[in-house]
Amino acid sequence: MYNHAKTGYKCPICLTIKGVENDSTMIKQDDIFYRDDLIVGIINSKYVKNNPGHIILVPREHYENIYDLPDEIGVRIFKMSRIFSIALKEIRKCDGITIRQNNEPASNQHAFHYHLHIFPRFEGDDFEKLSQNTNILEPSERKKYAEDLINWIENKSL
Amino acid sequence: MYNHAKTGYKCPICLTIKGVENDSTMIKQDDIFYRDDLIVGIINSKYVKNNPGHIILVPREHYENIYDLPDEIGVRIFKMSRIFSIALKEIRKCDGITIRQNNEPASNQHAFHYHLHIFPRFEGDDFEKLSQNTNILEPSERKKYAEDLINWIENKSL
Repeated sequence: MYNHAKTGYKCPICLTIKGVENDSTMIKQDDIFYRDDLIVGIINSKYVKNNPGHIILVPREHYENIYDLPDEIGVRIFKMSRIFSIALKEIRKCDGITIRQNNEPASNQHAFHYHLHIFPRFEGDDFEKLSQNTNILEPSERKKYAEDLINWIENKSL
Repeated sequence: MYNHAKTGYKCPICLTIKGVENDSTMIKQDDIFYRDDLIVGIINSKYVKNNPGHIILVPREHYENIYDLPDEIGVRIFKMSRIFSIALKEIRKCDGITIRQNNEPASNQHAFHYHLHIFPRFEGDDFEKLSQNTNILEPSERKKYAEDLINWIENKSL
């Protein structure tokens, strides 16, 4: 419903979930910190200047946006968004969490596969202004953020 | 967990759910367009310039933020956020939907009762910039947006 991906769209998130790494995905396998039967958690390739290492949660199956997302998957995404919000609080010692989910290009959706953003927030981070200009975060940095989450998950026996 | 409301905080959302209207709530009873056993849907009192009449979904019970929100309530909020995103698409003929949820003052949380924002988006609405300066939407305007949603819900037999 209300889809924008062109026919033949090479979905970077579907490729990532299949284990593919190439220039069109931008995402590395090392960015993945969580997998279950329905969803995958990834450190976002791009970052807002003072909020690096933010998370996206995505369904394993391809759904472009919230309009078509089955409840079973949306429910899992909610449950894990709560858990990973707490993880970011504990790991990053951040001052808050912003959750954002964009549907359609008019809402700044760039990858046409549903994804929920979870941002660590810090006092005076100027997030609203700086979120309009994101840059690529170095893969080595992303890997560190992913490893911190993997360790947190292991310690909590999730 | 990580709460910021001071002792004795007069929660404007709890007062609204109890039927109270006063200067400290800002919210009018006519702003409410949806109620079920767990959550309430309200037209937000404040608006972003080109995106008036956006929705908030709130739990009936008081929880300050996502960290403490029980899964049962978060799940209902997800399910209804999907349905009301489609409602806004159909009623407002908007070009997209942005979902946002702020936790703690560093994430621009002002009312200390969990609330999920659902914004109708329009091409060229300059939302990122203008969302930093919100104004009060006239109660008569809010009432019209609420009535449109009430009619949509009735037609869908929700």
